[in-house]
Amino acid sequence: MSTAAVNSRELAHPDRAEIRLEGVLHALSDPMRLRIVRDLAAAEQELACATFELPVSKSTTTHHFRVLRESGVIQQAYRGTAKMSELRRADLEELFPGLLEVILEAAELQAGRG
Amino acid sequence: MSTAAVNSRELAHPDRAEIRLEGVLHALSDPMRLRIVRDLAAAEQELACATFELPVSKSTTTHHFRVLRESGVIQQAYRGTAKMSELRRADLEELFPGLLEVILEAAELQAGRG
Repeated sequence: MSTAAVNSRELAHPDRAEIRLEGVLHALSDPMRLRIVRDLAAAEQELACATFELPVSKSTTTHHFRVLRESGVIQQAYRGTAKMSELRRADLEELFPGLLEVILEAAELQAGRG
Repeated sequence: MSTAAVNSRELAHPDRAEIRLEGVLHALSDPMRLRIVRDLAAAEQELACATFELPVSKSTTTHHFRVLRESGVIQQAYRGTAKMSELRRADLEELFPGLLEVILEAAELQAGRG
C-alpha cells in the first residue's frame, strides 16, 4: 500500500458526545488493551502502534487499537506511514470525571499485587 | 425444584484476592448489568433478583447476575426461594479504591445527558 493510500484512509472516531460509558469500560476490560492504555498514559504523548510489543499477533494488536479508538478511549492519526495513538484524556475527563485516573490506579495496584 | 434443593445449590463467588479489574470492568460494560449495579447501589441493601424488572428475558437476567457474581461485583445468596443480591462494596473498595463510586457517578452523568 502506498503512503498516499495509507494517509487517505479514514480512521473513524466517535465525537465526544457519542462516547458511551459502557463502551469505554468494555474497551478497558481486556488485559492487552488495558496495558496499551497504561503505556499511553505513562508516555503522556502519542505513540506509534509499532512501539507496542504485545504478546499477540499484529492483527490482534490492530484489533485492540481499533476497539480503543471506536470506543473513544484513544485518538489515532497517520504521520507518514506510522499510525500514532494517544489517549483522549480531556474528552474522557469531561464526560466521566476521574474515571480514567481511577482505572489506571486500580491497574497499577493490581499489577503490584502480581 | 424443592426449597431444600434450591438452598443447597452452590453459588460460586471469587475470593477477594481472585477479583480482577478486567473482569469487573467487563461486568460493568453492559447496559443491563450497569443498571442492576446502580439499582443495588441506590438500595444500599440486598435485593431479590425478582425485584428487577429488566426489559430482557428471565434467562438473560439470570446470565447478567451470574456475570456480576462471578466477576466479584455482587454477592448472591438464597433466602428461602428468593435469590438475593448485594454489591461487594467493601471488597471492591479495598482492591480498587474509588472505582465503583466513580463508575456510578459516570453512569449517573451519562443518564442525565440522556
